[in-house]
Amino acid sequence: MTDSKDHVVLSGTIELPRGFRFAGVACGIKPSGKPDLSLIVAEQPVVAAGVYTQNQIVAAPVILCRQRTPSTSIRAVVTNSGNANACTGPQGMENAEEMCRSIAQHVGCREDEVLVMSTGVIGKPLPMDRVNNGIDEAIKRLGDQSSDFQSASDAILTTDQSRKVASRVLEIDGKNVTLTAMAKGAGMIAPDMATMLAVVMTDAVLTPQQAQKMIADSAEISFNCASVDGHTSTNDTLLLLASGGSDVRINEKSGGGDDESRFVACLNELCIDLAKQLVADGEGARHWMQIRVSGALDHDDAKVIAKTIGASPLVKTAITGADPNWGRIVSAAGYAGPSITPEKTSLRLCGVTIYDNGSPVEFDAKALSQAMKQADEVTVDVTVGDGPGEAMYWASDLTTEYVRFNSEYTT
Amino acid sequence: MTDSKDHVVLSGTIELPRGFRFAGVACGIKPSGKPDLSLIVAEQPVVAAGVYTQNQIVAAPVILCRQRTPSTSIRAVVTNSGNANACTGPQGMENAEEMCRSIAQHVGCREDEVLVMSTGVIGKPLPMDRVNNGIDEAIKRLGDQSSDFQSASDAILTTDQSRKVASRVLEIDGKNVTLTAMAKGAGMIAPDMATMLAVVMTDAVLTPQQAQKMIADSAEISFNCASVDGHTSTNDTLLLLASGGSDVRINEKSGGGDDESRFVACLNELCIDLAKQLVADGEGARHWMQIRVSGALDHDDAKVIAKTIGASPLVKTAITGADPNWGRIVSAAGYAGPSITPEKTSLRLCGVTIYDNGSPVEFDAKALSQAMKQADEVTVDVTVGDGPGEAMYWASDLTTEYVRFNSEYTT
Repeated sequence: MTDSKDHVVLSGTIELPRGFRFAGVACGIKPSGKPDLSLIVAEQPVVAAGVYTQNQIVAAPVILCRQRTPSTSIRAVVTNSGNANACTGPQGMENAEEMCRSIAQHVGCREDEVLVMSTGVIGKPLPMDRVNNGIDEAIKRLGDQSSDFQSASDAILTTDQSRKVASRVLEIDGKNVTLTAMAKGAGMIAPDMATMLAVVMTDAVLTPQQAQKMIADSAEISFNCASVDGHTSTNDTLLLLASGGSDVRINEKSGGGDDESRFVACLNELCIDLAKQLVADGEGARHWMQIRVSGALDHDDAKVIAKTIGASPLVKTAITGADPNWGRIVSAAGYAGPSITPEKTSLRLCGVTIYDNGSPVEFDAKALSQAMKQADEVTVDVTVGDGPGEAMYWASDLTTEYVRFNSEYTT
Repeated sequence: MTDSKDHVVLSGTIELPRGFRFAGVACGIKPSGKPDLSLIVAEQPVVAAGVYTQNQIVAAPVILCRQRTPSTSIRAVVTNSGNANACTGPQGMENAEEMCRSIAQHVGCREDEVLVMSTGVIGKPLPMDRVNNGIDEAIKRLGDQSSDFQSASDAILTTDQSRKVASRVLEIDGKNVTLTAMAKGAGMIAPDMATMLAVVMTDAVLTPQQAQKMIADSAEISFNCASVDGHTSTNDTLLLLASGGSDVRINEKSGGGDDESRFVACLNELCIDLAKQLVADGEGARHWMQIRVSGALDHDDAKVIAKTIGASPLVKTAITGADPNWGRIVSAAGYAGPSITPEKTSLRLCGVTIYDNGSPVEFDAKALSQAMKQADEVTVDVTVGDGPGEAMYWASDLTTEYVRFNSEYTT
């Protein structure tokens, strides 16, 4: 097992995995005229796995994707932004199926070999004439260049301030294996319910079961550990597509190392990279917290504590105000639920210990506040005992801009 | 069993239960010079019961009170505001004990017959010289007039905008039984951790076990169903004191009706009255929601769903913005955790059905927004299936003032 960074992190340029083509177009779903239809087409059937929202009220595309993954033969993923196709009754499912059917006809595959994602306003029917025109146009524009990938990545965005992509290359048996992903806004960042969508593509050879386990495990420590406001959408979808184009089979033991562990470490890092991008671009966010809880009884306990700290409006506003307020953080750990040991509870903020084994300690509040103000990422390290459980969590702060954006209406 | 309002609701004037004297003074704990030491003294030993914070990090006064309730012989409750006496190590317990000892000497009772509560900033030692002077002064001023009760009620406040008191009189066997209470700010309304404190006093005759069960049950459907920002303090305390001064024993069956049920209904109504006052006066709050969830599998499920709706920043900001946004409310019910039936989920906002059995319905958004804007209390009625479980919950909205108040610092 390795957690060394033996892979190449690509920032700026994106390496594309073999076997995929991309397109993004504007078809008029968004009133702004911005790109709103994104298409990924695989040259050959690819292995696909998915993880979906835990909300019990789910949009039609989520129902379809759940039925179709894991799979050995997915040919395309179509995504529209600007309309979530959620809570629209039976019409929603008909429209989601029509999108897949339309793609299938163009690509020459079965309808159930197409996956579909939607994000945007809910409760309104999809304008299917525009969507169908968009699909026709996207099919024409499919390409395998970086610019095509970027177009596809942009067309899934809603109120995101910036494109969210990440890429890693791993060498296995002398061959390059690429993992590349696009994502959009996490944590309900839009007034009418945003959604977290992400597609990870690789040219590794994976079995569907392997892919499903990998992406579910990875979601658990990345996207499921990231929050803007804790409001889980009806459309959240994370897909992993594996084309096999590198001809590198990811086995538990092969060649000189445990390639599966290396691949998993790389996938986890990629997903965490994207999760952090989502939190950093949360609605109104100025800073975000990287919360590390250790000393809990187990990982699940540590995660609940970290999530509770990240969700507390009082902690979030303290971060907004660059206030090294140990009381708010420590007390949030105390009411999270899992057992903690108060006299063994300690806190470091931006690396400075301000609460140690149950008591506050002297520190330079002005200097620490200044450090918090300057940091994009404020590190919050909490120890709650001497158990083995630890977890990482990322959460945005809470600003007046968030409240304004989500409360100001013209009605 | 009865839930009819056969008791008298007292607003404006407060009826005082027999057997108690009150005082409130300013002793200089608060830099503002506002009243900060409150004293309740019982003429004879009274029955006392308590419910305390579920935070694992607790202030010294909470530890003391937990040890001393339920009890048959409490003589006094001393409360200071402006300093929570929390997270100050062994000194905190010594100071809490010293407060009780000082009262005991004045009153002529045992130290463990005194209860103590504190609220205010945490992590700073209590200025005991000022506290002791305050206690001396309060002892001198003890009185049984309404103005004395008001002074005591004011001295427990911190950043509350207004005094929080409530009173009910119930006739049992031709005699009056009085229940009267004072409370202070719920839900962490101050920058440095506010606390919910409340003392309910009655002149009914109760056993300690009876009092303990009554106040615990009542907390469950009142204070535990109220939230400003969901941040549970280290000091939350709710006490019930029963002097027996009315000579009316509260039995399960006596005379013409079930007096215990009538008394409990009255106590519950009193506690709900105070809980609503706390939410209405939440930090920065403009409106509050009365959330009623029905159709859940059981009460606990309904309560979790109601709490999740009330805690969602997106729901809170929708209420702030007078936006009848069914999507945010319904999706919050969907991610709360407990099982719901999406196709049997409906929503009424201020009495208007806007989501019915899984689908949005046409409504006059402008008129409804106007109604929300004008209502102090916005009623949110959610049905999530056809189960028997239902619950009520009260939560404040989320305003830019809340964020500003909790994030703006001078450091």
